[in-house]
Amino acid sequence: MNYDVLIQNATVLDADMQLHTGWDIGISGQKITALGPDLAADAAVQLVDGSGKLYMPGLIDGHTHTCQQLLRGRILDELPMIWTRIMLPFESGLDRETVQVSAQLACLEMIKSGTTAFADAGGRFMDEVAQAVADSGLRADLTCSTIDQPGVPATMRADAQQALQNNRQLFARWHQKAQGRLTVSFSLRTLLSCSPQLIAGTFAAAEELGTSVHVHMNEYPGEVNACLEKYKLRPMAYLESLGVLGSRLLAAHCIFVSDSEISLMAARGVRAVHCPFSNSGKGVPPAPRLLERGIPVGLGTDGAAHGGLSLWNEMKILRSVQNAVNGAATADPAILPAATILHMATAGSAAALGRRHIGRLAPGYQADLIAIDLCQPHILPTADLVHTLVETVTAADVCDSMVAGRWLMRDRQVKTIDEKAVLRRAADLHKRLICN
Amino acid sequence: MNYDVLIQNATVLDADMQLHTGWDIGISGQKITALGPDLAADAAVQLVDGSGKLYMPGLIDGHTHTCQQLLRGRILDELPMIWTRIMLPFESGLDRETVQVSAQLACLEMIKSGTTAFADAGGRFMDEVAQAVADSGLRADLTCSTIDQPGVPATMRADAQQALQNNRQLFARWHQKAQGRLTVSFSLRTLLSCSPQLIAGTFAAAEELGTSVHVHMNEYPGEVNACLEKYKLRPMAYLESLGVLGSRLLAAHCIFVSDSEISLMAARGVRAVHCPFSNSGKGVPPAPRLLERGIPVGLGTDGAAHGGLSLWNEMKILRSVQNAVNGAATADPAILPAATILHMATAGSAAALGRRHIGRLAPGYQADLIAIDLCQPHILPTADLVHTLVETVTAADVCDSMVAGRWLMRDRQVKTIDEKAVLRRAADLHKRLICN
Repeated sequence: MNYDVLIQNATVLDADMQLHTGWDIGISGQKITALGPDLAADAAVQLVDGSGKLYMPGLIDGHTHTCQQLLRGRILDELPMIWTRIMLPFESGLDRETVQVSAQLACLEMIKSGTTAFADAGGRFMDEVAQAVADSGLRADLTCSTIDQPGVPATMRADAQQALQNNRQLFARWHQKAQGRLTVSFSLRTLLSCSPQLIAGTFAAAEELGTSVHVHMNEYPGEVNACLEKYKLRPMAYLESLGVLGSRLLAAHCIFVSDSEISLMAARGVRAVHCPFSNSGKGVPPAPRLLERGIPVGLGTDGAAHGGLSLWNEMKILRSVQNAVNGAATADPAILPAATILHMATAGSAAALGRRHIGRLAPGYQADLIAIDLCQPHILPTADLVHTLVETVTAADVCDSMVAGRWLMRDRQVKTIDEKAVLRRAADLHKRLICN
Repeated sequence: MNYDVLIQNATVLDADMQLHTGWDIGISGQKITALGPDLAADAAVQLVDGSGKLYMPGLIDGHTHTCQQLLRGRILDELPMIWTRIMLPFESGLDRETVQVSAQLACLEMIKSGTTAFADAGGRFMDEVAQAVADSGLRADLTCSTIDQPGVPATMRADAQQALQNNRQLFARWHQKAQGRLTVSFSLRTLLSCSPQLIAGTFAAAEELGTSVHVHMNEYPGEVNACLEKYKLRPMAYLESLGVLGSRLLAAHCIFVSDSEISLMAARGVRAVHCPFSNSGKGVPPAPRLLERGIPVGLGTDGAAHGGLSLWNEMKILRSVQNAVNGAATADPAILPAATILHMATAGSAAALGRRHIGRLAPGYQADLIAIDLCQPHILPTADLVHTLVETVTAADVCDSMVAGRWLMRDRQVKTIDEKAVLRRAADLHKRLICN
C-alpha cells in the first residue's frame, strides 16, 4: 500500500471505543486507508513514531459561534438579559476585520484543543469566516445567521427572500470547497425570530440543496413559553405542524424538550447537540433519554463566551451534571458512560454536521485525528484509558492534529496559523471593542 | 528590603480577587514581604520576569487520598458497591513501597496542576507519605485513617486506644516538621465506622494538641440513613449530641446536609470541603447555602480515582453543577460567581486545612504561589481574567509553582521530584497491582 503518512507503534482508539496498543495507522491522501499491527512501511512518504501517544478521532464541535471569540469572559455571572444587553449589540456591530480575526482566533483555539471540525451557527461576513477556516485546515459547516422578525438591529435582519438568497449565495461560493472540508447549511437563529414563511422556505431550500438547517432549539424556558403562547405548540411540535421537522434539522441545545417532543425528534430523525457549560446556566438537557431513543446527539461549546472552545472541558461537565441530576435521580452511576461521552464528542457530532466519514478512526474515513501525549502524571498509570480521557485529559494534552491527511499541529506548534500574529491582532481589536 | 526573590512586572490576583498589572512580588525567606508596583530591586537575590504571567495563590486541595493514586480510571461508571468491592480491598492490601510511590506520584500531579497544599484523609504507612511530601516541597495536612468498628480488613482497623496512639505518634513525628510545611490532624474515616468512644477520644486529643479532625461527612444517603437508624440523629446532630461538633471538624463532602445541620455547622464553626467531580456521582452539595451562612467551604479532589487531582477541573464542574441545579432552580445566574469559586479553592481550602497564612497573596502570608502562562488563545483576549481562570484555564497552564519561598516547578519542569523515575516506578507497581 502506498501511504503518504504511516504512524507506527501507536495506541489507537477504534470506532467501538476499544484501545489497541502497537498499532499502525496508514494514511493515503485525505483518508485513513489501513489500521492495525505491523503495516508494511516500505512506500511510506512520512514515518511517524506513535509510541507514547494515543491516536483518536479529532473532536467535533457541533455548535459554536466563531464571531463571539472576543466575548470571552464577558458574560459569566452576568444578570439577564445577556442576549439583549450584551450579545446582540456586540454581534450586530461587528465589522469585517473583527469577524476575520475572531474566526482565525477561534480556529487557533480549536486546533490547540484537539477539535478538527465544527458547525458554526453563523453571523455576518461569513466569507471571511470561510476563508479563515479554509486557511486553518479545519473542517467546518458554516451558515448565515438568519432572522427576519423585528427586535434586532438592522445589520442582523433581512426579509425572508433576501435571507434565503444570502444563504444560497454562501452555499454557492463555499459548499464542498477547500478540498471538501467546508459545507454550508441554512439556519434559523431561533424559531421566534423567524416568520413561518422563512422557516418553510429555509427547509425547502435545504431539501433542494441536500444540506442542513442549524437552529437554536428549546434553549430557554421563556422561548418554549413564547412558542406555546404564539403557536399553541412546543417548538418541535410547531416545526412538525409546518411539515418541516426532519433529518435536515440540526437542533442546538435541546435543554427543555418534553417527552412528546423527544418522540417527534426520534420519529423524524432530528439531530441534536448539547452544549454542557452553556446549558448549565439554563438547565439540564435530557441527554440519556435522547440517546435511549436513538437520536444522534453531539456536543458543542457554544463559542468562547460560554467557557471556551475545549470539548475536553465540555465532556467533564456533561458527565458531572448528568450524573448529579439524572444519575442521582435514578440511582444510575453509569447514566452516561465515558465511552458514550467520547462517542458524542466525535461520531455524535459528526452526525450533527451531517458528515458520514469523520468522527472515527477506520479505513475509508477521513484522516481527521489527534494524538494525546500519554506519559504524564495526570494520565498514567490508569486502569482504563477511556475513563481517563474523560476524567483528566485536557486540551493541552493534544500534541498533534491532522485534518484530511494534513498536519495542522505537531508538538503543540500550529502549522497553518501564525499564532503570535493572530493573538496580537486580536488583542488590538479587543482593546478597541471591549476595553474602550 | 532584602528580598530573596523579586518577581517583576507581573499580573497579580490579590486577596480580594482583584487584578493588578505591572506589580512586583517580593519574597523573603518563606514569606511574601511586599506586593505592589515598582518594588526596589537592589538587594534581590533572584530577579524573575513576571511579564505575560498571572501570579495567584497556589490552589489548595482540601480533601484527597494520596494512597489511591494507582486507582485512576478504575471506578468511573462502576456499579455499587465501589467502596466494598474495589476501594477497600485495594487500600487494605497496600504495601509500604506502593504507598510511597503513590504519594510521590500524587505530589507530582499536584505540583503540575498548580496545587501547593492539600489535606490527605490518610491511610496506612503515613510516614512514607510524610517523607514524600517533605521531599516534594508541598505543604500538607496528614492523618491516619481511623476505623475501630468491624466490617473492614484487619489492616485498616485498630481498637480505639491503639488508633489514637497511632495518630498521636504520627503527630509527634511530623507535626510542624519540614520547615513547618507539614501538619498532622486526627481523623475518623466515617462516623459509622467509629465507636462513640473513639469519636469522643479523637476530638479530645485534637483539642489537647490544637489540631483538626478530618472526617468523611454526609457523603451518601445510605450513610445518613444508617446514622438516623442507629442514633436517631443526622450525622452533624449526632456529633453535637456527643459534645464534639466544633471548629476542630474538617467535614469532607457535606452533600446531604439538612437545613438544621447547616445551622449547627454555622453555630459551631465547622469547616466544610466539597469535592465536585466525586460529589456529582452522589448528589449536589448545598454550597451556596453553606457560604451564605458563613461556613468556610473549601474544594477537594477526593483523590485520583475521582477524576484526577486538578482543582481547575473541579472549579469548572462546581460552577456548572451548581448553576444547572441551584442556579436554575432559583433563577440566579450568579449563584456561585467565579471569584467565589476561586476563593473556595484557595482561601476556603486554607481554612479547611486550619492554616491562617496561606491561600492569599498578601504581605505576611506564606509564599505559596503559582504562575499562569497567559499568552494563549484559550485565555486571551478576555474581558475578565477572573472569569477566564474558572472557565478555560487548566492544570497545564500553570508554568511555575512556589511553596514557602522555594520553587517547586519552573516552566513546567518539576524541580523536587524526578518525574520520569516516579512514572516508571508507578507503571511497574500498577502492572503488578491492577493489570495482573
